[in-house]
Amino acid sequence: MHRPGPTVDAKVWKRDRVWIAEENDRIASEEPMEIRVEQGHGKQRTTSSLSVTMRTPGDDFELAAGFLFTEGIVARKRDIARIEYCTDSQVPQEYNIVSAVLRAGMDFQADRLSRHFYMTSSCGVCGKTSLEAVRVAARHPIPMDRPVISADMISSLPEKLRKGQDLFSQTGGLHAAGLFDAHGDLLSLREDIGRHNAVDKVIGEQFLAGDVPLSDRVLAVSGRASFEILQKAAVAGIPFVVAVGAPSSLALTLANEFGMTLVGFARGERFNVYAGPSRISDLVT
Amino acid sequence: MHRPGPTVDAKVWKRDRVWIAEENDRIASEEPMEIRVEQGHGKQRTTSSLSVTMRTPGDDFELAAGFLFTEGIVARKRDIARIEYCTDSQVPQEYNIVSAVLRAGMDFQADRLSRHFYMTSSCGVCGKTSLEAVRVAARHPIPMDRPVISADMISSLPEKLRKGQDLFSQTGGLHAAGLFDAHGDLLSLREDIGRHNAVDKVIGEQFLAGDVPLSDRVLAVSGRASFEILQKAAVAGIPFVVAVGAPSSLALTLANEFGMTLVGFARGERFNVYAGPSRISDLVT
Repeated sequence: MHRPGPTVDAKVWKRDRVWIAEENDRIASEEPMEIRVEQGHGKQRTTSSLSVTMRTPGDDFELAAGFLFTEGIVARKRDIARIEYCTDSQVPQEYNIVSAVLRAGMDFQADRLSRHFYMTSSCGVCGKTSLEAVRVAARHPIPMDRPVISADMISSLPEKLRKGQDLFSQTGGLHAAGLFDAHGDLLSLREDIGRHNAVDKVIGEQFLAGDVPLSDRVLAVSGRASFEILQKAAVAGIPFVVAVGAPSSLALTLANEFGMTLVGFARGERFNVYAGPSRISDLVT
Repeated sequence: MHRPGPTVDAKVWKRDRVWIAEENDRIASEEPMEIRVEQGHGKQRTTSSLSVTMRTPGDDFELAAGFLFTEGIVARKRDIARIEYCTDSQVPQEYNIVSAVLRAGMDFQADRLSRHFYMTSSCGVCGKTSLEAVRVAARHPIPMDRPVISADMISSLPEKLRKGQDLFSQTGGLHAAGLFDAHGDLLSLREDIGRHNAVDKVIGEQFLAGDVPLSDRVLAVSGRASFEILQKAAVAGIPFVVAVGAPSSLALTLANEFGMTLVGFARGERFNVYAGPSRISDLVT
């Protein structure tokens, strides 16, 4: 595997009141990175996995060092003997696992951390497991032929979402997630400072009402479409995601793998279709 | 403690080319919420803590149910016998710990999850520990009398940040963090799909160069100022944070507790000062 870069190229169907020819677009890379801490030698050597974060590849050692410093695990440069990518001849190199080797004699006890962590020994395949975890959890199949909606209806969703954002109007500081039916009617809207929380609240409401899977629904989000948003939609069986913001590379990979429709940059009469164009009634590809 | 709401009121010094009288502002609530799973009875009873997420209070049970469903832990409504706030006569109720009690006989093994988790028994004080963790980690004191910069210099930072965002220009999908000196010169800029990662990369670079604490620096971020951003700045000793987006309630609490300056909604010639006005040379309070 070649080393991932900060952006990837994608094919996109652009709409600006009318359909514009298929174009090439550049989207932000999103890949998981696991941060590990190693200490000791030989049989005393221990490895602790402290964090898996979705990040844009690049400056990975700075990211690891900054994380360990700002989380209070190291205090000065000399606390870290070296930083390296995890290598394992049994596993293809993915540049997604970074180990910080602490200086000898440094007192670090992973189990004293208030944050979550887990112990690990193998090199693992951090990148692949993200999609694999969705595959295992996605018990509700995504229907391939529905819902089918028009370009005009897609364009109407962000405005309907915006009108329901009471807390955003007051504070300017909240994400929103809205669940729409195939007629473009808003069924549920939730706001939260975390985009993934707004999605969980909307899906959780339907779950508690016994109304999952959500196979005929469209999920609209006020921000960007990250892996996490697509993951949650996929597990809930939602085939169609419309984002006001940009999509990430891993969100697009997931949409393609599960046959979902992914629309980004939905603003006014413009939007971009990144995946699943067959669910848009008036888009001929 | 009364139950937290979705917004809180805050005092703010507004600037729009000139200083406007002190005003009241409403900002989005951010509070930690821990999601737990309980199963079994009597001595067989086990409690697993699956997640701590920063969320806006409200619809907490839907959030817990949605999280457990979209993470593949439960599949249908009847898998959850009930959802409740954690109560403990020894601990003041904070409405920040939600337990989902699984139905009897359901097969759930926390240690099979690929995500991080930890086992717990006590009710804990989730809200307080977030600030407490910063207090413990924050080894570098925040200087109270510097850096001092002018309102015009604050207004110049977002544009300087924006000009350096190469990847955002290409993709429209990345956050940026920039480190400035007291003269308003950009020292370092990093972009990432995760706002906290961009901050970690900027701080990590300085850390690896042996240049921490960053007591004379200003951190500017392209998005909102959440607890996590202020936490990372505080640990690195950065006294001054300027955000293009909105601040959260917990970010403001942290800024006040550590004596930091927090500026939000920095766009064009407008910005709001939420905390630490004494570091702005031409603001008389």
